[in-house]
Amino acid sequence: FSDDKPPATVGQWLATVLAGRDSFAALEVSRRRALRGEPAFGWILACPDAAWQAQCALLASRLAEADASPVGRTALVRRYPLLGVPFAVKDNIDIAGQPTTAACPAFAFVPGEHASAVQRLLAAGAVWVGKTNLDQFATGLVGTRSPHGRPASVADATRISGGSSSGSAVAVASGVVAFALGTDTAGSGRVPAAFNGLFGLKPTPGRVSTQGVLPACRTLDCVSIFAHTAQDAAHVLAVVEGPDPADAYSDFAPGPAALPALPALRIGIPRQPDLDGAIGYDLAWAAALAKLAEAGAQTVELDFSPLYEVAALLYNGPWVAERHSVVAELLATQPEALDDTVRTVIARAVGMTATDTFKAQYRLKAMRKSLAELWRQVDVLCVPSTPTHPTFAEVDADPVGANARLGTYTNFVNLLGWCALAVPAGVTPTGLPFGVTWIGRGGHDAALVHLALRLTPEPVGTSPLRTPATAPNLAIAVVGAHLSGLPLNGQLRERGASLVQATQTAPAYRLFALPTLANSTAPPKPGMLRSASGGGAIAVEVWDMPQIAVGSFLALIPPPLGLGSIELADGRWVHGFLCEAHALAGALDITALGGWRAYLASLPKP
Amino acid sequence: FSDDKPPATVGQWLATVLAGRDSFAALEVSRRRALRGEPAFGWILACPDAAWQAQCALLASRLAEADASPVGRTALVRRYPLLGVPFAVKDNIDIAGQPTTAACPAFAFVPGEHASAVQRLLAAGAVWVGKTNLDQFATGLVGTRSPHGRPASVADATRISGGSSSGSAVAVASGVVAFALGTDTAGSGRVPAAFNGLFGLKPTPGRVSTQGVLPACRTLDCVSIFAHTAQDAAHVLAVVEGPDPADAYSDFAPGPAALPALPALRIGIPRQPDLDGAIGYDLAWAAALAKLAEAGAQTVELDFSPLYEVAALLYNGPWVAERHSVVAELLATQPEALDDTVRTVIARAVGMTATDTFKAQYRLKAMRKSLAELWRQVDVLCVPSTPTHPTFAEVDADPVGANARLGTYTNFVNLLGWCALAVPAGVTPTGLPFGVTWIGRGGHDAALVHLALRLTPEPVGTSPLRTPATAPNLAIAVVGAHLSGLPLNGQLRERGASLVQATQTAPAYRLFALPTLANSTAPPKPGMLRSASGGGAIAVEVWDMPQIAVGSFLALIPPPLGLGSIELADGRWVHGFLCEAHALAGALDITALGGWRAYLASLPKP
Repeated sequence: FSDDKPPATVGQWLATVLAGRDSFAALEVSRRRALRGEPAFGWILACPDAAWQAQCALLASRLAEADASPVGRTALVRRYPLLGVPFAVKDNIDIAGQPTTAACPAFAFVPGEHASAVQRLLAAGAVWVGKTNLDQFATGLVGTRSPHGRPASVADATRISGGSSSGSAVAVASGVVAFALGTDTAGSGRVPAAFNGLFGLKPTPGRVSTQGVLPACRTLDCVSIFAHTAQDAAHVLAVVEGPDPADAYSDFAPGPAALPALPALRIGIPRQPDLDGAIGYDLAWAAALAKLAEAGAQTVELDFSPLYEVAALLYNGPWVAERHSVVAELLATQPEALDDTVRTVIARAVGMTATDTFKAQYRLKAMRKSLAELWRQVDVLCVPSTPTHPTFAEVDADPVGANARLGTYTNFVNLLGWCALAVPAGVTPTGLPFGVTWIGRGGHDAALVHLALRLTPEPVGTSPLRTPATAPNLAIAVVGAHLSGLPLNGQLRERGASLVQATQTAPAYRLFALPTLANSTAPPKPGMLRSASGGGAIAVEVWDMPQIAVGSFLALIPPPLGLGSIELADGRWVHGFLCEAHALAGALDITALGGWRAYLASLPKP
Repeated sequence: FSDDKPPATVGQWLATVLAGRDSFAALEVSRRRALRGEPAFGWILACPDAAWQAQCALLASRLAEADASPVGRTALVRRYPLLGVPFAVKDNIDIAGQPTTAACPAFAFVPGEHASAVQRLLAAGAVWVGKTNLDQFATGLVGTRSPHGRPASVADATRISGGSSSGSAVAVASGVVAFALGTDTAGSGRVPAAFNGLFGLKPTPGRVSTQGVLPACRTLDCVSIFAHTAQDAAHVLAVVEGPDPADAYSDFAPGPAALPALPALRIGIPRQPDLDGAIGYDLAWAAALAKLAEAGAQTVELDFSPLYEVAALLYNGPWVAERHSVVAELLATQPEALDDTVRTVIARAVGMTATDTFKAQYRLKAMRKSLAELWRQVDVLCVPSTPTHPTFAEVDADPVGANARLGTYTNFVNLLGWCALAVPAGVTPTGLPFGVTWIGRGGHDAALVHLALRLTPEPVGTSPLRTPATAPNLAIAVVGAHLSGLPLNGQLRERGASLVQATQTAPAYRLFALPTLANSTAPPKPGMLRSASGGGAIAVEVWDMPQIAVGSFLALIPPPLGLGSIELADGRWVHGFLCEAHALAGALDITALGGWRAYLASLPKP
């Protein structure tokens, strides 16, 4: 990368460092663009001189240390997985010593500590370039409610950037920074991603600490990530996620690494979605669905009314009082300090009662319970990220109405404890970016990223990018009646296990057909054991089973079988089925057939 | 049991049925006492004629069916585990076709369906005798706030019964019914138990469905059980507990069957508890602690101020608006229909705002998070059930203050998602019943009962009584380095496993000392396998491990070891450590020593 074309993605920035090059000049370009206010209205604060020099000095010392060490820069990037990567922070997230304004100068305060997520980024070596513009108090999906100006979509200067994380989105989309933190309460991390052709990863509530984030709705707020690629977003999430004792709402419970494979994957989509045909969103959505169909995906049209009912709770219910709890004093003493629309919206909380609040919470609790059943029908949801992409004029004409429509496919997600990944999905005939959003149940963050990458593969760069945490699995090699299609295979599937590999053991095992007891209802089974010498390679399937389900599986395994360790043909060891030697005396040795399936095929048909 | 001395406990009532005797006369005595209003002010409704005849006819037909069948009454009681057992229901819990009044006649309505808990009791064969008095809208811990009169403690006619489940407690304590359902939001299932010498089991929130229970605080309410013995309370819980799709707050997640054994058990007690010396509560508490010490229990004095802070949130915070949400219309249109004190308390909700509500919920969320850490210090809490036992005159003098003091050791429990078991703990020098309450974290209901029975064993009757559900365990026999005191034993303990039994295998196994690799940091290990013929009995320990932890344990087990099935000396089979045969070629056979510990002892001291 030359100085006039800086790296764009996280992976590219890391590649510069790994290649032993100096990224200071490129970083300086980033900061200068922020100082110049580029892209327009994206920034509230560019990193001041003193803070910038301190960051550069720290980066220089880390690089020097690595270059003086035999382990070098690869080890350095392992230790600092975002070393020298520039990022932006929405200005409702604290950076120690810098004002947090939430786009309301009268509200500004200077925190003494970094937000937890910022602290993790800085500890990983990332370099903050500035704090970005937002809908004031993160109250809006439009990006127009700020005294610092209204950023436009990078694709169309007449259209809004989306909000509330407007500045974070345009700072990434225009290439000033590699990634940015936003926040997302009702869609603020997804709508601006869609309007600027970015990935917007909104983690499961509680997955990333909100300590040091100025609350919009404390019970719903999430720190979100804007990035150029799904891999970048996943890498940043892997850095910032984790439990935080300082955040009462921290709730770190990673789920599976992947959803069921295509074509088994069941994708729920909205029946008759609201899409603005005038700007070609209907065609763009149809094209996105056609691409899914082409990939062999199975879509299931769902009635989204219960989800819209949840969204209506957020919009019309007492949750606005959470916003009020943050600004009550300012609203009472200096109402003119607030943006007109923001003030109108938040002032609705005045007069809402405790009784109303509990009633709405009961309703939400019931909706959460009934909507949890939705995941029996589908594995994931796919929605248009927004129904339309308004112009500034359209928002001016109806500031509240235009805003509300934008949240159609985003509002309900946090109330239900789910996660979402907004992804770019092509361009409309009129040249606007179009986005779709994958929505998964809580903890499925890594699985959403995995799915997006499977459907739209990204080049794998030279930099080691991390993936978000997942619940631990145990690989289990099965040999007999648990193989795909055989009678006990359901014991694996009902525990959420997935087939990883059909392979063979190392050539050191013997397989026997166990004698079946008279009148037994159990299916016939083989017994495998490692032989002291000789033996053959036996066909096995390796299944990944969630570790917490292994105990209930072992409970079903009768003598003489058990779970030990098995050497595979490629030299790896996994856990798997073995048989006690004493039980094989007199049993039929079927090693030569190479596996249980071959043995079954060799039997005379009944 | 003769007609003039009916059975008292659930176990005794079931024994009558099992013995083939007719319990109709005894049931008739129960109902007649309820019809006569005995004990005084305990009842709001005795079961009317038609409903009573229907219940008796159903019971008769079930008994006749059993007596005509070869499987007989034992099978019948297995199918109907409360067959013919009389119970009472607090009058804020629905019985189909009977008015639910909550002790407010103007509020009364006739539900079409039984409450879920009642439905389960009736399906189990229990017979409802009547609906009991309560502090109006379950708002109170005194039992005096009812237009139906104020029941006295069965031990002292000048003192209150406690509330709000006043009638349910005195109906059980005076022997009219074998058990009763109450509700418990802030202590209503524990305070009246203490004042009437009963067991009061308040399950973990969500463990028993509250469908069909008139809410006090919907987010906190629990159905509770009054009984004469811990075994009875556990049996009734086993019948009524379980998930309920119709209740949004249903959350059935059973925990362990037992806490750590004495003397390892760490019991948290309040430092300098508030206890009324004038009635000898200080001496009674000291005696209870002395009994614990005698049993070898280890108490840890704790600063309870954070718990009192949680209680204050409930008392002064917005949760009273939950009560308001139930009676708002009545309060607005017929305020005189409410008890004066209840009206005063609930009317505090008017004017509480949505903003206040969220702020209090944030505080509670933070307290829940920090107080979860308390369970690192102790395994269970033991508290006086109440600080004092007021007279009617004392309550009249200060209705709100006297009530508040009674909740000192009960108020915080539901807000924190915990469970509690109030148990009788002797009598004061002045002859008043004294009670202590065991408090456990969510899901520990069965473990609390187990602990109470261990400390104060109850006679085991002839009736088969059930125990509440527990999280599944897997019994694992360990043979070598996992034995108590050996290097890998911590792998069991850190997974919450507990030692069940030190025993031997069936005399069919061989034990070998596995060769240790040079430079290995792993401890020396044996390998055991079943031999085709001959073999010895090998010393093993059987550990009960939570099933969800077994996978992470198996993940640590390297070849040539694994988990199979092992036959014990008593013929039982459990899962446990086995070794692959191929790895034992040339290993030292130490079967004759009878176990790994004996082998280690036989080695020369280094």
